[in-house]
Amino acid sequence: MQHETMPNFLKKRAFLTPERTAVYFNDQTISFKELYEKSYETAGQLKSLGVKKDQYIGVILKNHFDTVVILFALQLMGVKAVILNNRLSKKELVWQVNDSKAAAVILENEFYEISQSVEVPVIKKEDLFAATLEIPEIQEEIHLNDVCTVMYTSGTTGYPKGVLHTYGNHWWSAVGSALNLGYTDRDRWLCSVPLFHISGYSILMKSVIYGMPIILHESFDANKAIGDIKSKHVTIMSVVGTMLFRMVEALEGSQLPNYFRCALLGGGPAPLPLLEVCKAKAVPVFQSYGMTETASQIVTLAPEYSITKLGSAGKPLFPSQIEIILENGGVAQANQAGEIIVKGPNVTMGYLNRPEVSKEKFNQGWFHTGDIGYMDEEGFLYVLDRRSDLIISGGENIYPAEIESVLLAHPDVADAGVTGFNDETWGQVPVAFIVPKKNAKVTEEELIQFCLVSLAKYKIPKSFYFTKELPRNASKKLLRRKLSELVHEGRIQK
Amino acid sequence: MQHETMPNFLKKRAFLTPERTAVYFNDQTISFKELYEKSYETAGQLKSLGVKKDQYIGVILKNHFDTVVILFALQLMGVKAVILNNRLSKKELVWQVNDSKAAAVILENEFYEISQSVEVPVIKKEDLFAATLEIPEIQEEIHLNDVCTVMYTSGTTGYPKGVLHTYGNHWWSAVGSALNLGYTDRDRWLCSVPLFHISGYSILMKSVIYGMPIILHESFDANKAIGDIKSKHVTIMSVVGTMLFRMVEALEGSQLPNYFRCALLGGGPAPLPLLEVCKAKAVPVFQSYGMTETASQIVTLAPEYSITKLGSAGKPLFPSQIEIILENGGVAQANQAGEIIVKGPNVTMGYLNRPEVSKEKFNQGWFHTGDIGYMDEEGFLYVLDRRSDLIISGGENIYPAEIESVLLAHPDVADAGVTGFNDETWGQVPVAFIVPKKNAKVTEEELIQFCLVSLAKYKIPKSFYFTKELPRNASKKLLRRKLSELVHEGRIQK
Repeated sequence: MQHETMPNFLKKRAFLTPERTAVYFNDQTISFKELYEKSYETAGQLKSLGVKKDQYIGVILKNHFDTVVILFALQLMGVKAVILNNRLSKKELVWQVNDSKAAAVILENEFYEISQSVEVPVIKKEDLFAATLEIPEIQEEIHLNDVCTVMYTSGTTGYPKGVLHTYGNHWWSAVGSALNLGYTDRDRWLCSVPLFHISGYSILMKSVIYGMPIILHESFDANKAIGDIKSKHVTIMSVVGTMLFRMVEALEGSQLPNYFRCALLGGGPAPLPLLEVCKAKAVPVFQSYGMTETASQIVTLAPEYSITKLGSAGKPLFPSQIEIILENGGVAQANQAGEIIVKGPNVTMGYLNRPEVSKEKFNQGWFHTGDIGYMDEEGFLYVLDRRSDLIISGGENIYPAEIESVLLAHPDVADAGVTGFNDETWGQVPVAFIVPKKNAKVTEEELIQFCLVSLAKYKIPKSFYFTKELPRNASKKLLRRKLSELVHEGRIQK
Repeated sequence: MQHETMPNFLKKRAFLTPERTAVYFNDQTISFKELYEKSYETAGQLKSLGVKKDQYIGVILKNHFDTVVILFALQLMGVKAVILNNRLSKKELVWQVNDSKAAAVILENEFYEISQSVEVPVIKKEDLFAATLEIPEIQEEIHLNDVCTVMYTSGTTGYPKGVLHTYGNHWWSAVGSALNLGYTDRDRWLCSVPLFHISGYSILMKSVIYGMPIILHESFDANKAIGDIKSKHVTIMSVVGTMLFRMVEALEGSQLPNYFRCALLGGGPAPLPLLEVCKAKAVPVFQSYGMTETASQIVTLAPEYSITKLGSAGKPLFPSQIEIILENGGVAQANQAGEIIVKGPNVTMGYLNRPEVSKEKFNQGWFHTGDIGYMDEEGFLYVLDRRSDLIISGGENIYPAEIESVLLAHPDVADAGVTGFNDETWGQVPVAFIVPKKNAKVTEEELIQFCLVSLAKYKIPKSFYFTKELPRNASKKLLRRKLSELVHEGRIQK
């Protein structure tokens, strides 16, 4: 169908508004025309290094102007980018590269050590930019059903799966967001969330689709964010609770300028005291609900409801739908909790090389999130529990099962359970419960070191509780929520 | 594909922003929730009158609040609306109703006389609103490839063809426009163009898709338009040249308020003096190029280019593409004239019950407009000639071939040619050239009366030239452009 093809996003944008600024990065400023030319050049270099259309290519890069160029070069060539989380451990990265069957990996120098452990060519960023220039074949048109990116997410089963994002998923996400938040040619979006997350990558896509300048930061720094909001006329910023908290702290007595119109909050609802401070400091908070599988937010709450609908994530974006279903498959009534299922053109078609899991998660176009929630009489969504005890720590998703399987591999551990504890700084942090093997002696420090071999730092449990038994149900399923209750009741101690 | 289904537009909008105003019409104001409820009720009445999903239903209605309700009721039911131009003659309307194979016609009382000439049930608006209420079956989801509306356009061959608009065409048109013009929740669009034209209907669709109030006028009145821009905070208005001209005249010494940010101009480029007056009076003009087949504008020129790119229609909207092709099928160079071909998700899939014409007009997804133009080095489009000597008079399309075939049916006319003359008020007006039959005497007045039986008033030639021969090429094709030259050269006189 004609609905399915569109001009190449970056090329079209460079044609429409060539002189408009695309990216501010530290002292660098680049227009859409220049970004296109630089990405075109890089595509030519990728070609000379053997990278071809339709390949999956791993990418381990930090937030940087060069990363923007490389990601768009891959789009220009019709290459599918497997964008990996650069905070992962070497072991995790190697696993994901292998799982994706990527034909090659592009990375920053500091991640080069993974090259010893993967069997595919590894291209250092510096070598890429120094490579011979060839004339690349540019995809003049893109097909909305073609895969654009892959991002890994762990999900219920503990091992990560690559979420497929088509150009259409990114396009519809950007459009759904524009229809909700509005868009004017005075908008500028601050991106201090990682480009390897959908939260960051989706800002890149909005930039070319809207023709909107973005301000890219290497990482989040509250004072730098506030400074750029003021000096670079930032109107919108993507945040998680921790970031928002630090920003309102850093504001001290001052306020944000009134052109700053949206702090788009992901990663769980903000607590009332934070919302009240935000209100006092003129930080309009749009709470939202989304996941990698929905190509960024699918449900958003406008600031005028943030107090009256406290704790709600809002209503689904125009092109998208949500439903709450009960265990028997029926649709829930208002205020009745059940599994959140979602549908829409922004929702993934499934997982890379996992047809069975993809099939299992979809039913007649509806994606089963595994998250639990309800809708009130007016259709506002309240998320009660992220899927399978998902821990969200400073905006990063942490799956207990993944940490548990590492802990269980330790020779002195008989059983292990992980759950999230509330934390003032990070929202939540992972906490481990360990049943040592009979007569074995194992220390917290030893387990931390053991975990660091396999897991990203942010996944390492912040506390360890040693106990004789873990709460399990009749079918031996670990009852993770019981773990924190046992601590609160004083039945397990450190 | 999942990309292809979406929630019902009006129902979703009423769910998202129930209290927001949808339509201002004279003293009436209605919210999206109320509009949904009223349309739902009307859908129930249509059901009780036998109207069913997937039928084509003719609609002959004027710009009115009721028309908005009826058009949305048809969408709710999944009925395809054949929206007819109420300025057409009875004969033309009957022809189009029959051609569309519509199952019924909904009309205002004043058009009721066509009921004698069509074989399908005719439903008066008053009878519809007085009908029994049944519980309608609402289309909870729409499919972007489903036909939503049909609008007749004459085109090259002289007889009108029904252009099919899918929900997707309307959706993408609205989205492409929002990405170009921007959209904020302070926007309000004044609709004083006919709802039976794509220019008006597309404003309705934008209203529900954006959640934007529209101000609906029964017809264009410069003072009423200016008054509502000031009192109802209108930010955008669709105009044709004549309207713009009258508005700047009516403004006299005053200016429009500075929140008025866009006069979206269709129906051919504005002349320089008009643009200069607009600039002086703070009327930002966005020139555009589009046609029924592209579901409203496909190319737009931002005001900052209106003088430097004088006469240009601008660049294609983000999701759309244009090319200029030569007679040999090759792609034109910059500044080289050729046929304008267009592609994009807003472009029609073809004509109702005319598979052969539809096929002929498309080539690998590109629609051949028949219009002639060129693009400059920067890709700005200049339209030189509308297809087949199309005459655009006060925003209405007039096809010479259609008028010629009526004139040729007169017993005393041996040959007839029609072309457009420039006109200060209307932009262009149709003018006829008549070769009377040997020894026959026929007068201008007689031909006007004869035309009025078959043609809408705006199509009646404003002047008649009587001559002995019409300029034709070797294959006897009428050279319409020669007609005006002959007058200018004084070789034909009235």
